[in-house]
Amino acid sequence: LASFSTAEATVVLRENGKMREKSLTMDTLNPQVKAVEYAVRGPIVTKAGDIERGLQQGQKHPFTEVIKANIGDSHAMGQKPITFLRQVVALCSFPELLDSSIFPDDAKQRARRILQGCGGQSLGSYSASQGVDCIRQDIAVYIEQRDKGVPADWDNIYLTTGASDGIVSILKMLVSGQGRSRSGVMIPIPQYPLYSAAISEMEAVQINYYLDEDNCWALDINELHRAYQAAKEHCHPRVICIINPGNPTGQVQSKKCIEEVLHFAYEENLFVMSDEVYQDNVYSPDCQFHSFKKVLYEMGPEYFNTVELASFHSTSKGYSGECGFRGGYMEVLNLDLEVKAQLVKLLSVRLCPPVSGQAAMDVIVNPPLPHEPSYLQFHKEKSAVLGALAEKAQMTEQILNTVPGIKCNPVQGAMYAFPRIFIPPRAVEEAMSLGISPDMMYCLRLLEETGICLVPGSGFGQREGTYHFRMTILPTTEKLKVLLEKLRDFHIKFLKEYASLEEPKR
Amino acid sequence: LASFSTAEATVVLRENGKMREKSLTMDTLNPQVKAVEYAVRGPIVTKAGDIERGLQQGQKHPFTEVIKANIGDSHAMGQKPITFLRQVVALCSFPELLDSSIFPDDAKQRARRILQGCGGQSLGSYSASQGVDCIRQDIAVYIEQRDKGVPADWDNIYLTTGASDGIVSILKMLVSGQGRSRSGVMIPIPQYPLYSAAISEMEAVQINYYLDEDNCWALDINELHRAYQAAKEHCHPRVICIINPGNPTGQVQSKKCIEEVLHFAYEENLFVMSDEVYQDNVYSPDCQFHSFKKVLYEMGPEYFNTVELASFHSTSKGYSGECGFRGGYMEVLNLDLEVKAQLVKLLSVRLCPPVSGQAAMDVIVNPPLPHEPSYLQFHKEKSAVLGALAEKAQMTEQILNTVPGIKCNPVQGAMYAFPRIFIPPRAVEEAMSLGISPDMMYCLRLLEETGICLVPGSGFGQREGTYHFRMTILPTTEKLKVLLEKLRDFHIKFLKEYASLEEPKR
Repeated sequence: LASFSTAEATVVLRENGKMREKSLTMDTLNPQVKAVEYAVRGPIVTKAGDIERGLQQGQKHPFTEVIKANIGDSHAMGQKPITFLRQVVALCSFPELLDSSIFPDDAKQRARRILQGCGGQSLGSYSASQGVDCIRQDIAVYIEQRDKGVPADWDNIYLTTGASDGIVSILKMLVSGQGRSRSGVMIPIPQYPLYSAAISEMEAVQINYYLDEDNCWALDINELHRAYQAAKEHCHPRVICIINPGNPTGQVQSKKCIEEVLHFAYEENLFVMSDEVYQDNVYSPDCQFHSFKKVLYEMGPEYFNTVELASFHSTSKGYSGECGFRGGYMEVLNLDLEVKAQLVKLLSVRLCPPVSGQAAMDVIVNPPLPHEPSYLQFHKEKSAVLGALAEKAQMTEQILNTVPGIKCNPVQGAMYAFPRIFIPPRAVEEAMSLGISPDMMYCLRLLEETGICLVPGSGFGQREGTYHFRMTILPTTEKLKVLLEKLRDFHIKFLKEYASLEEPKR
Repeated sequence: LASFSTAEATVVLRENGKMREKSLTMDTLNPQVKAVEYAVRGPIVTKAGDIERGLQQGQKHPFTEVIKANIGDSHAMGQKPITFLRQVVALCSFPELLDSSIFPDDAKQRARRILQGCGGQSLGSYSASQGVDCIRQDIAVYIEQRDKGVPADWDNIYLTTGASDGIVSILKMLVSGQGRSRSGVMIPIPQYPLYSAAISEMEAVQINYYLDEDNCWALDINELHRAYQAAKEHCHPRVICIINPGNPTGQVQSKKCIEEVLHFAYEENLFVMSDEVYQDNVYSPDCQFHSFKKVLYEMGPEYFNTVELASFHSTSKGYSGECGFRGGYMEVLNLDLEVKAQLVKLLSVRLCPPVSGQAAMDVIVNPPLPHEPSYLQFHKEKSAVLGALAEKAQMTEQILNTVPGIKCNPVQGAMYAFPRIFIPPRAVEEAMSLGISPDMMYCLRLLEETGICLVPGSGFGQREGTYHFRMTILPTTEKLKVLLEKLRDFHIKFLKEYASLEEPKR
């Protein structure tokens, strides 16, 4: 057999003289996979990783450390785990510890309850596809309390592998049709790119509705109508996705706005998906989290008994920040009974969500009560995390708004700022000539010159001709201050470098 | 507003007088979701759950307990976790325990290493999409040792959410085309229904190759050629899936057979997916596990450097049985470099596999060594589990083969028996008239009369006119014996009830 090497691989002639080609190449790859984009872990992040490794190996850069503000990964940025949550998970993982005096009784009680819900009382058993029964019950109780008594049925609760998994499962149910009857999915722009990625992968139609940047990224009902009417010409709009508090935009929706969305969904027969993973992350004293479910309930039974609503929550955000556990749940209302059986079947193919993630979710919905031994420490830890986030949300907005050519809406909630940046026309031209988006060029330069890793706005969607980046507010207060100052200096230098006669817009 | 109730829901007339219809009904559901079947958690299992709840509420049945032998869920059937694995996971979950004297040093050392690989040294951080670096390195070392020195590159290792997740991701890459150029996926019949479910969901073409029941469920290379040639007429066969040791069939493939499969894949440019999650579950003294990778290596560089091979492993099986952690990995060889970047991108959309499952996987590939303090206990626990499984594998085959009208191949490996059952023609007719498959009727009757929960062979695929069931060998030895005896009595009674002139086949 003859063999020779190319740049990428050794090519071998087979016995029959034909070359053994790869079965899977860019030409034969599933085109829907190719179409997927996911900026949060895109090229900028890969590059940041390369630079980090280079630094470790002694390479010289104009900075000594990469600061990652690209992803909502709290613990990686130094946030400490909530002790009580970890105690419960450790007890569930190694039940011999239930006899140990190092753990408080309330943690032991939670762990015992969870283990009793597990097959063979082990975290190592598959749970039911919908999740462990008693955890689903705890979640229903939590939702009732959160929503001031609006009834919650644990039969409507499904544990998930992070919120992403639940979102993808529900979208998968809703996608069908060809040509003009293909399913359309309404998503906010800017959006969290899981939505656009899932829509690409499933070959559904993405229907953009633009949030109003000039009005604190509020959702404008007229824009919903515009987007819906335009989309109806070429697809079948079936579902509306809302992210509240917003990712990447950090706004918190008003009750009135939610009512308008629900009325619209009711009228147009749309399935509602409300991504509420940041429900505990509200910082602005003028804002309050309203769940879509509670607002639906208050609109009366003709709404509450009919509108199909899936709401998503997660262990990854809030004050716990337990991303690595991949815990989450969804509550799905008014699902047709036969369709519900189909959903359970679909979920059963992947057997069950990680049971330790389910245990973590249980602690989040069932934290220590004031009379329990762990309450004080739990309360202190929770308040410290949320207090620091609120402080950093404000600081981020304030410092960014001192920079000429940057304009940042208030970070009312979630974990991100999505400021608008002025990019001079000469820089825009240069980016175009390089074949990359101007904000991508901006973020690459920022990374190379300062070590700060942000995600360009183009990865989330933005109005044509506007540029943004998303940054998390998760670095420690000191580090975030350094980041913002470096960013300011970089931006001023960048403006100068590409200066033209035009004034930077504020 | 007028409202009225139907059997299923309250229907409401909207202000405009039109009825608010559900947006998601069986008519508008994604037809690919509808097409999915997953027998392991199908109607039999739902019914078993109903009966179990009924028993708890005092309902009368001809038995006092449901015995679930439908799913490979070791801990639920009473198998104890491996202490060392759980110690490491508990230490990672609650690192304060690293200072405690209750844990052995080797467990602490493993936990420290894992935590050092995690962002912020926390299990709560997202890992890289491919998994934690040091765990991928440990896996590569494990594979090299398992395969007696065949090189393994940790860059080819991807942690997954159980093996299922990896299998679905690879299939997703390979699916494309329309009509005659649609991707064809070769799968064994009988198969593990994850494969058929994923193929349905992705609208690929399922190409069945039948295992040879008369030859201990061996894979026959002529049957591969037959299936391939026939499929080529109507699709583009791109990938061959192998399950070794077999699920549901329990056979262990010979080295010669693996060579033949690999040669075939090489010649026909097929991507090879080898599901090797039962690699530690080989019981028959005449059998040995050969990894597809090692065999490929021994076939020479013209094979080893070209054939695209993905191999899957899991925390759920083996001697640990940690299903609930949803841990697993895949090793992917000879992937085109650009395609590899696409795979990483695809995986990044779901952010990362559960990090506690990654930690569990690390312990499985990096168990205590003979000189370490936990070795003795670990070795004892591992041997006890594998010894009991070997005993139960043999007992299952032996008892089943004493029953007239049941024929069971040796359970050489994995965790299942898939015996052939004779169903009398009158019973077949009755099932047909009920619109269910005869083995489904058989399993439903068995469940109702004895409380034993098995899965009908039709859920896995079987040659037309033959009937089987899958049962796990996981109940404790005593319970398994009771199960087998009840099954024997049921079968004899069933044959009698439907007796005709025809003799049961052996």
